[in-house]
Amino acid sequence: MNWEDIAKELSIETETKIVLLVLDGLGGLPRDGKTELETARTPNLDRLASKGACGLTDAVFRGITPGSGPAHLGLFGYDPLQYQLGRGILEALGSGVEVGRNDLVVRGNFATLRDGLIVDRRAGRLPTIENEKLCEKLNSSLIKRGGIEIRLYPGKEHRFVAKLTAEGLSDCLSDADPQKEGRPPIQTLALVPEAELAAVIINQFLDEAAEVLKDSAPANTILLRGFSKFPAIPTMASLYKLNPAAIANYPMYRGLAKLLGMTVLDVGPDASALSDVLEKHIGDHDFFYIHFKKTDSAGEDGDFERKVSAIEEFDRSLPRLLPLNPDVLVVTSDHSTPALWKGHSWHPNPFLLVSKTSRLDGLTSFSEKECARGSLGRFEARFAMPLMLAHAGKLKKFGA
Amino acid sequence: MNWEDIAKELSIETETKIVLLVLDGLGGLPRDGKTELETARTPNLDRLASKGACGLTDAVFRGITPGSGPAHLGLFGYDPLQYQLGRGILEALGSGVEVGRNDLVVRGNFATLRDGLIVDRRAGRLPTIENEKLCEKLNSSLIKRGGIEIRLYPGKEHRFVAKLTAEGLSDCLSDADPQKEGRPPIQTLALVPEAELAAVIINQFLDEAAEVLKDSAPANTILLRGFSKFPAIPTMASLYKLNPAAIANYPMYRGLAKLLGMTVLDVGPDASALSDVLEKHIGDHDFFYIHFKKTDSAGEDGDFERKVSAIEEFDRSLPRLLPLNPDVLVVTSDHSTPALWKGHSWHPNPFLLVSKTSRLDGLTSFSEKECARGSLGRFEARFAMPLMLAHAGKLKKFGA
Repeated sequence: MNWEDIAKELSIETETKIVLLVLDGLGGLPRDGKTELETARTPNLDRLASKGACGLTDAVFRGITPGSGPAHLGLFGYDPLQYQLGRGILEALGSGVEVGRNDLVVRGNFATLRDGLIVDRRAGRLPTIENEKLCEKLNSSLIKRGGIEIRLYPGKEHRFVAKLTAEGLSDCLSDADPQKEGRPPIQTLALVPEAELAAVIINQFLDEAAEVLKDSAPANTILLRGFSKFPAIPTMASLYKLNPAAIANYPMYRGLAKLLGMTVLDVGPDASALSDVLEKHIGDHDFFYIHFKKTDSAGEDGDFERKVSAIEEFDRSLPRLLPLNPDVLVVTSDHSTPALWKGHSWHPNPFLLVSKTSRLDGLTSFSEKECARGSLGRFEARFAMPLMLAHAGKLKKFGA
Repeated sequence: MNWEDIAKELSIETETKIVLLVLDGLGGLPRDGKTELETARTPNLDRLASKGACGLTDAVFRGITPGSGPAHLGLFGYDPLQYQLGRGILEALGSGVEVGRNDLVVRGNFATLRDGLIVDRRAGRLPTIENEKLCEKLNSSLIKRGGIEIRLYPGKEHRFVAKLTAEGLSDCLSDADPQKEGRPPIQTLALVPEAELAAVIINQFLDEAAEVLKDSAPANTILLRGFSKFPAIPTMASLYKLNPAAIANYPMYRGLAKLLGMTVLDVGPDASALSDVLEKHIGDHDFFYIHFKKTDSAGEDGDFERKVSAIEEFDRSLPRLLPLNPDVLVVTSDHSTPALWKGHSWHPNPFLLVSKTSRLDGLTSFSEKECARGSLGRFEARFAMPLMLAHAGKLKKFGA
């Protein structure tokens, strides 16, 4: 019996509200002895820490640096080792492409074909504006087949997402990409008998695309890799009997929230806007996932100061959010993005939980170091969900 | 390879003695900043904390509120997700009904049948004294069939436990209970072919009971739900080579101990009696599970002061117990029952281990907050057993 079965059996609908604040990439590494979070002036977060219980989470397990997909899945109670989202679906979500249950998505490159060989897998990193034009040209030229729709969505430079919509398409397909230059283009192969139909359609599409593009060198063909269907993942409503909403600005997080059945609410990139949206919709949902991206972006850029500022910006927004008085408030991150590391890292995430039923750890500030001393201990992020549900009174007793 | 296999392979018989003191529902929540345990004057527990190592346990995992069954199974080293005790067996244990390996037990209700429909599933919550009379009447009227014995044990109001004794009875049976009023009574159905025999016997019994009761309205029929056999659970002797004893007053805990093969010793409800019984039997066993109920009862009643008093009562009993000098002494609880929550909760349990081989955490008091700082960390309660066995020198090295 695993957590999903337990959740389905024990969860109950209540009036209580959970707010999960995710400061993307919050955790850091010390510069001159202090991390970004320790450097930032955060009187509101510090006060919250003194009113709740703290801990540290690992997105997957110790030492594993997660992508945004697994890191977020864990926070929502999904085992990130069980649910691995395909590259195609993440690229689609990240590009703001809507993906439904009958869609098959895949990452694409414009590439250069010469004398029957792929000589440049990125078509000279063609300008994004050219990419957009070519996608439009292909979209208007592709022959519609009975019940099958194919659409390309331009990305940056040579990248695009292709979406095929039809019933019964399987994503058990090999990449239509020779991976190395100097090789001939290759077709996709069905990896299971049920994928034969999809393979035929995709290989026809590849031929047609090459025909349409034949005079557009260097972008005179396309490569496709990472075929993905809408993943077979249960919704948060089905697992937890929640009516959840996401307040997020970036396509990737909005798309992921949608995958899990959340209502996705619009918001800008600034922290100040988050509480406005929460206030407006607080009556409509019982679970709010609120995503703040600037901390991660600054960390990725290796900009320690900007990450400190982003944390302070978030902290300043809290006095408007707290009076909305959720029954359970969690502040944490999906993964660490230390400015000194310039990317996602494996370091654990600060985790702070405030509710009427939380024990008080007596900590006086919110930081990686203080969280390491908190009573919640160190745990895999997928246990955050049972913990939040329990504090919200949304889980019945297990066993008699 | 799981813990049970490891335990069987590595455990050895020794002269050393383990005493596991379970203060039921010990963990709490703060009132005016202090939990019940922090409020109580506990000089003896505090002194023990300074002589041992501390930690916090989760009965199942973070966020899960356990019933008494899973909470205790964990403490004895059984995975509570693997061994789920049926409602019938727990009701039987809680009622003090002895359950053997050939017994099938089930929860029963007296109910009211009118014009072919169950119109009251609780027979007007008939007086317990009436219940007792009806159970006696049924017990004396039921026809004994070859090798099959059926016996009813009255509970409170409309509730009873029925026990069927025969070889080869399966508990894979549907409830003989329409669950809602205004519906006709239903028979039990065999959910697997092996349960056919049990289904036939039970449905005959239902008919006979209705016949015996036909003039006893409102209690003129019975409903049965939660058929359970003695669970297929290995004994502590078979896993750990222990000769374990339980010192417990309440039927539920005595019954559970019996399930695991413990010798169950009699004791009253007061803490002072526990050490008397332990002293008398210290030479007979190498593992003692000692259960103190008052902390939980006070918590369930929401009586903060009474829970504080119960903790202090227990603390005062320690000076008589400690000179018995067990090699490993653990003080913990099965689950938290905060007075402010008035029920079992998911908050982790304080855990204190004293032995010659324990590291010293240098803590000066025994409380939830101090335990959060202890060197044992936060762990699932099922790891308490390997820890106790190790400190008692009862586990060999794993691997070469």
